[in-house]
Amino acid sequence: MADPRFFSRSAPLSIEAVVAITGATLMSEAETYPPIKDVGPIETAGLGDLTFVENKKYVNLIANTQASACFISSDLVDRAPQDVILLLTDRPRRCFATIANILYPREKMLPTIHQTAIISETAVIADECRIDIGAVIGPFAKIGKGCWIGSNSIIGENVEIGRNTRIGANVSISHTQLGADCVIYPGARIGQPGFGFEIDASGPIDMPQLGLVKIGNNVEIGANTTVDRGAGPDTIIGSGTRIDNLVQIGHNVQLGVNCVIVAQVGIAGSTTIGNNTVIAGQSGLAGHLNIGNNVQIAAQSGVVKSLIDGSVVGGSPAVPIRQFRKQVAVIKSISRSIKK
Amino acid sequence: MADPRFFSRSAPLSIEAVVAITGATLMSEAETYPPIKDVGPIETAGLGDLTFVENKKYVNLIANTQASACFISSDLVDRAPQDVILLLTDRPRRCFATIANILYPREKMLPTIHQTAIISETAVIADECRIDIGAVIGPFAKIGKGCWIGSNSIIGENVEIGRNTRIGANVSISHTQLGADCVIYPGARIGQPGFGFEIDASGPIDMPQLGLVKIGNNVEIGANTTVDRGAGPDTIIGSGTRIDNLVQIGHNVQLGVNCVIVAQVGIAGSTTIGNNTVIAGQSGLAGHLNIGNNVQIAAQSGVVKSLIDGSVVGGSPAVPIRQFRKQVAVIKSISRSIKK
Amino acid sequence: MADPRFFSRSAPLSIEAVVAITGATLMSEAETYPPIKDVGPIETAGLGDLTFVENKKYVNLIANTQASACFISSDLVDRAPQDVILLLTDRPRRCFATIANILYPREKMLPTIHQTAIISETAVIADECRIDIGAVIGPFAKIGKGCWIGSNSIIGENVEIGRNTRIGANVSISHTQLGADCVIYPGARIGQPGFGFEIDASGPIDMPQLGLVKIGNNVEIGANTTVDRGAGPDTIIGSGTRIDNLVQIGHNVQLGVNCVIVAQVGIAGSTTIGNNTVIAGQSGLAGHLNIGNNVQIAAQSGVVKSLIDGSVVGGSPAVPIRQFRKQVAVIKSISRSIKK
Repeated sequence: MADPRFFSRSAPLSIEAVVAITGATLMSEAETYPPIKDVGPIETAGLGDLTFVENKKYVNLIANTQASACFISSDLVDRAPQDVILLLTDRPRRCFATIANILYPREKMLPTIHQTAIISETAVIADECRIDIGAVIGPFAKIGKGCWIGSNSIIGENVEIGRNTRIGANVSISHTQLGADCVIYPGARIGQPGFGFEIDASGPIDMPQLGLVKIGNNVEIGANTTVDRGAGPDTIIGSGTRIDNLVQIGHNVQLGVNCVIVAQVGIAGSTTIGNNTVIAGQSGLAGHLNIGNNVQIAAQSGVVKSLIDGSVVGGSPAVPIRQFRKQVAVIKSISRSIKK
Repeated sequence: MADPRFFSRSAPLSIEAVVAITGATLMSEAETYPPIKDVGPIETAGLGDLTFVENKKYVNLIANTQASACFISSDLVDRAPQDVILLLTDRPRRCFATIANILYPREKMLPTIHQTAIISETAVIADECRIDIGAVIGPFAKIGKGCWIGSNSIIGENVEIGRNTRIGANVSISHTQLGADCVIYPGARIGQPGFGFEIDASGPIDMPQLGLVKIGNNVEIGANTTVDRGAGPDTIIGSGTRIDNLVQIGHNVQLGVNCVIVAQVGIAGSTTIGNNTVIAGQSGLAGHLNIGNNVQIAAQSGVVKSLIDGSVVGGSPAVPIRQFRKQVAVIKSISRSIKK
Repeated sequence: MADPRFFSRSAPLSIEAVVAITGATLMSEAETYPPIKDVGPIETAGLGDLTFVENKKYVNLIANTQASACFISSDLVDRAPQDVILLLTDRPRRCFATIANILYPREKMLPTIHQTAIISETAVIADECRIDIGAVIGPFAKIGKGCWIGSNSIIGENVEIGRNTRIGANVSISHTQLGADCVIYPGARIGQPGFGFEIDASGPIDMPQLGLVKIGNNVEIGANTTVDRGAGPDTIIGSGTRIDNLVQIGHNVQLGVNCVIVAQVGIAGSTTIGNNTVIAGQSGLAGHLNIGNNVQIAAQSGVVKSLIDGSVVGGSPAVPIRQFRKQVAVIKSISRSIKK
């Protein structure tokens, strides 16, 4: 179970409540069921715990689980021991997440503005905000209801932040309009000028970066990630998109909704990305590309051409994933056939 | 146009002033010209706006631009509509940048030292500096005239900063001599010890890192970029060099003047780089290399050998770019010729 | 020599003391030896300085060194000039580091808690700590004896830090138990939630991240590096491990003791790594892998399979290093044999 000093757990849930909330189908019949006190991974979950399994890779763990209840997909049901309460669903992990969020709601926040926070007289702070030690809120900034601004973070002039958004420690945000229900992790840098200039042997001339960053609702931006503001157009991040740590988003990039951008990805300037697109870790995308919806880009890819909806690519330069796998196999085969 | 809450525009310029400042050739004759009020990209520039075009890729946009005036190269002049004031130049983008900087001068700064800034009694702060909320200036630090130190940034003991340099929010700088007219973006880390130690199964012994970081004039260092100090020699960054976000500069690296280092590049210890060299995003350079002047390194390259002046390379391990392209073509071709 | 404004040097050491401390063998005979005042690299070391050489690449530098004394391996002894005091050892660099640490001990710390630091009433701060300007220590945090917490750093609720650990400026740490004698460099982010959620076209549901980060003793974590806390299990970093700048450590990762993780490496969630393993710069490791002890992973590798003890790999996807070199050679050879 989670360390109670760091994580607060809510009251137990009945199996009936779990079923009602998730829509899963209860596979066993009993007069009464033990309450669900906690959630845990299948290896370590114990009595009173709810777990899940959906990956065949972990099928052997089912037989030995000590969990009291388990969300499970239909193809794995036969492998489960009889004394586990099985909850049948197409989406075991999603159901598990739903219950986990109820048992471990996100950290409660006591609205308060710390006396060391420096808030401009012209900033507008809505009700129920928490503003932590040493935070700075610049002139004309607007902070929505229920926001939490972390310690020593800097919210620049005219920045707008929607309701219930949480900003971690040591973050800096300028030239940005940020939606509701977002989470910005510690050390993220949002709204600084993009990397734009003219340069030759006589030296650089800066190109003024005159756009903003506009971020939708329910977006998360990882620790120490950088999002540059637009050069003229804006840099845009659609609602529901999740960005991991140490990612670079260049100026004028447009990211759609519900995208997943894994750690250390870099997206160069003016590239447009559709909805529900997933970019795995350390991939790089060149500038001025059009990447479609539902695209999947494997880790460490180097994408240098635009991609239509539903593309699945890998490699550097990136090619369709089946072609990439074939390339890898061919190189391996040829290099083995040659004696050194 | 740029959002006026975030960006302040100067008074309009006459076409005659634009010509005088940039040296471009006015291609049309009229008794009077409308004043240039703003700048913008060719797709969105409108009445009273100045734009530019120099890339043939965008040639189709010229015919439909609503801009009043346009810097243009001679090979594209024929494609422009007659009602646009054409300004002929070899360097349309550079001219555009020059005018954009006049219409949108960098943010004005009101010299002031915020009462929450903590400045050592032995630090020397020249005139006309702005030191923001919560900034820390250590003992014996010297801050030149007209500098701007951002909120919650830490300037360490003995650090020297030249005139008119601007340091963003949440930056930390130690063991560094920084020139004039530089810009350090939020979250950059400059002057921490390099990654130097002896290690074996009995554990690590640190190698004291006894050098500094020395940075020239008119250098920019991106958000969350890290520049380690030297191990004995110094880490050196030449004047006019532009470094993007999330770049790693190892100890003892020497970067020449007017180099361009794109986001997420990593340069390992003791590598020396000449002038006017461009390293594209996510490339890595091994340690102890000598990279010449005017070298171009493609994105995601892995450079493991020294490179002479004017080299153009790509791939990992990096090879001359033509060879890299040939390798890519050959792999593609072979893998297609084989049935799976 | 090191700039005395930035680095304080201890009193000179006699050659006899150097020999006694390091166990090296003195190769010359004289009635008296000059004292060792300083250390330096072989190219620049001068009169009174101690240097070392162990890499054949630098063998030509020995003949011309002006150093008074030199740690040297037996195979290079013949190349040294007669007037240098030679100190024979199997480990010249390690001996050098040992003496360098004596001549340049790490920065002395005056225990003091700055009046602007905000320390929770329920935090426990042991003796002899230094807590710098604007640092924040949260409720129930425990800071061991002799720790140094840098300016504007944030130590979260319940975080525990062992003795003599030093935290740089602008660091944030939450949900973490950190050992003794560690160094955390500026801007590091430790303990934020891992990148865990369920997502589909209807949007993301967060997976609560209920583990901690547990870090051993004598660990160093580089500038702007990010270490996410576990999802349920903990993220673990073993004693003696050295992590460079801009590294990403995903949730549930377990790193063994005395590992070396070079800049910009990314390790995805739930991957386990043994002891004494070295991962060179910009490499990426997929999630859920088991990487053994004494593994070496070349720069820019993409590791997608588990690796047994002693593996040496390179490439993306990574293969045994000899196979990787053969692949590189084969591709080069084939692409050269084909006319374009």
